[in-house]
Amino acid sequence: MSTATSPLATPFPALPPIGGVTLRVARARYKNWDRCDLTFVTLAEGTAVAGVLTNSKCPSPEVEWCRRALVLGRARALVVNAGNSNAFTGDRGRAAVEAIAARTAQAMACQPSDVFVASTGVIGVPLPIDKAEAGLDAAFVAESCGWEAVAETIGTTDTFTKGAFTTARIGDRTVKLSGVIKGSGMIAPDMATMLGFIFTDAAVDPAFLQSALEAANRQTFSCITVDGDTSTSDTVLAFATGAAGNAPIASFDDDGADAFAAALHDLCRQLAHLVVRDGEGATKFIAITVEGAESDGSAHRIAMSIANSPLVKTAIAGEDANWGRVVMAVGKAGEPAERDKLSIRFGTTQVAEGGLAVAGYDEAPVAAHLKGQEVEIGVDLHLGEGRATVWTCDLTHGYISINADYRS
Amino acid sequence: MSTATSPLATPFPALPPIGGVTLRVARARYKNWDRCDLTFVTLAEGTAVAGVLTNSKCPSPEVEWCRRALVLGRARALVVNAGNSNAFTGDRGRAAVEAIAARTAQAMACQPSDVFVASTGVIGVPLPIDKAEAGLDAAFVAESCGWEAVAETIGTTDTFTKGAFTTARIGDRTVKLSGVIKGSGMIAPDMATMLGFIFTDAAVDPAFLQSALEAANRQTFSCITVDGDTSTSDTVLAFATGAAGNAPIASFDDDGADAFAAALHDLCRQLAHLVVRDGEGATKFIAITVEGAESDGSAHRIAMSIANSPLVKTAIAGEDANWGRVVMAVGKAGEPAERDKLSIRFGTTQVAEGGLAVAGYDEAPVAAHLKGQEVEIGVDLHLGEGRATVWTCDLTHGYISINADYRS
Repeated sequence: MSTATSPLATPFPALPPIGGVTLRVARARYKNWDRCDLTFVTLAEGTAVAGVLTNSKCPSPEVEWCRRALVLGRARALVVNAGNSNAFTGDRGRAAVEAIAARTAQAMACQPSDVFVASTGVIGVPLPIDKAEAGLDAAFVAESCGWEAVAETIGTTDTFTKGAFTTARIGDRTVKLSGVIKGSGMIAPDMATMLGFIFTDAAVDPAFLQSALEAANRQTFSCITVDGDTSTSDTVLAFATGAAGNAPIASFDDDGADAFAAALHDLCRQLAHLVVRDGEGATKFIAITVEGAESDGSAHRIAMSIANSPLVKTAIAGEDANWGRVVMAVGKAGEPAERDKLSIRFGTTQVAEGGLAVAGYDEAPVAAHLKGQEVEIGVDLHLGEGRATVWTCDLTHGYISINADYRS
Repeated sequence: MSTATSPLATPFPALPPIGGVTLRVARARYKNWDRCDLTFVTLAEGTAVAGVLTNSKCPSPEVEWCRRALVLGRARALVVNAGNSNAFTGDRGRAAVEAIAARTAQAMACQPSDVFVASTGVIGVPLPIDKAEAGLDAAFVAESCGWEAVAETIGTTDTFTKGAFTTARIGDRTVKLSGVIKGSGMIAPDMATMLGFIFTDAAVDPAFLQSALEAANRQTFSCITVDGDTSTSDTVLAFATGAAGNAPIASFDDDGADAFAAALHDLCRQLAHLVVRDGEGATKFIAITVEGAESDGSAHRIAMSIANSPLVKTAIAGEDANWGRVVMAVGKAGEPAERDKLSIRFGTTQVAEGGLAVAGYDEAPVAAHLKGQEVEIGVDLHLGEGRATVWTCDLTHGYISINADYRS
């Protein structure tokens, strides 16, 4: 963990245990440090699993491993390594993942394909198998721990621990959903340099869990960006142990399905926002809503064009109501837009309408809004019904310091 | 002009006069400053014109004016305003452009459509017609000036004046080509926040000039990026007066056509590189070449993904041989790529091959290369014959300082 905590940090919430989930951490010492960097989670037999993974064309072997294992839909264990992403390491990287899965499967008396693996850290250095195995052996016999220890152990450049909790009512049972996540650079659509893990005691079918997670992902993790860069290791996995004993949900027609999906969406949104709040160098949390686009997809692409514009992000950092840069970002998105219909607001104050500044525009309320830690930008294209909201942070000297000094 | 000159600046070259072109500058005082900010160029009767303009969906009225006027292919005058882009200003902005063209046409005894107009500066404030007209009236009677005065007058946040010169042999005549350009933020593919003006005494047909300019643009101005942002005002215009008296070129089959096109390409490349060298906060000039892609277009998109990656740009700023970030940027481009075939070099040193670090990789020559002002990144996908080179600069604290402090 870095020492300079993000000014947008929020306290780690109280997360209760989830039935069927046991958490452990250990020191594999992937880097020259004395902190826990290996997380080992065991899951009750019959646990369903779903996942969304990076769209990178150069994924890590962990991502490829998870993609194959997800087809079976069942999980018994999760291993997370911090400090080395093992990406772009050829056969040696693949061998490291296989070794981790094999050793864990042996200890758990399960199949290697029941073991999910994720790693984060430097690219291009094969994960050392000896350290991974020693770390695992320590983890197998470690005392179980709580959620915050896991959130801390999966972190790398994160400046605060990130977790979220919610519940849903299924029939006469209340099911719990807990999640932990790490950021915080290479955060872009199609996931992020982000490892997120969600655990619930709900009984749900893997296919339903996958559908619900994908739907939530589209409006949460895929709607955040820090720097427009997409990691080779992005992974969100959701595990459902069934310990709550509800009548299993197999489809959206089943009782409680909508409630569970809504809770999962809420949890994903909480986690996604935490990643943005720990964006490298962030001092402002920015919500960008585009309305009146020709489609939701078009609105999303325009919102992302604004969210990824260095000129918009630096203007917000400078608390500058430079709405011209928003116009620029709308214009460059390549999506249907008519300049003379465009309206723009900061917070609740309309600054431009019908393709030009509003008459008698008073910058004072906008300047006041921009001084806060939470900034809203609204764009209405007045073309159709398409709508999207995305979240990002500002671009500051802190981002440059972190990334121009970080050594590979 | 800003006071802190880019460390990548080059001296303004000696540019000879171009027959049929007369340069003048004046003070319209679009901002509260005492510098020339209005450029007025007169062109001999029969001058051919070609242009490439921003692809922004929210273009300035100047861009729309030029797009219409270009259809006729002839020009008698160019007016350039600095300090106010007049973009996103509705009817009042359009009226300002029409007023400038009308007043200039009256003074020149030509059609308004023979007058080309470009403006750069803040978005959202209508260009004041009274100031433009007073500036024009001063320019009409001003002494003629040289190229560097024009380069200085069209500049805004530029830290040095930018010009280039070359010649071509057409039959028994040597024709001259001169150009001036301004940057230096909002620089991205599909042009840039960039106004570039090229003048030649060659006799060429407007349609041929347009083809040659578009071809040159694809491999020069459309291959540079500073921050991935695209201006609402990007404009490159080329004017050919015919004063050299060569046999007019009407198509690529004509004598001297290839030589002229090559010279135009060379001039555009020089000008494009100068814009990158004045990229906001730039301390490194970075050339990125992608080879072995499935097509040239695919190579271009991958090269731009690398060039626009904040993580790659900050790594170069930090002189960090972090090739993992190059892998990341290749992976996120969404173009065909096979991780295990990928090779990457910095300068002439291969750092990764076949999907992993080269055996016995020695960082020393790479570190030495990165300490220089000119950095080369090479990627070979080993998939096909597609190839592209793009140019960018690093991302530094200077960029943040310039853009978080610049007030709208």
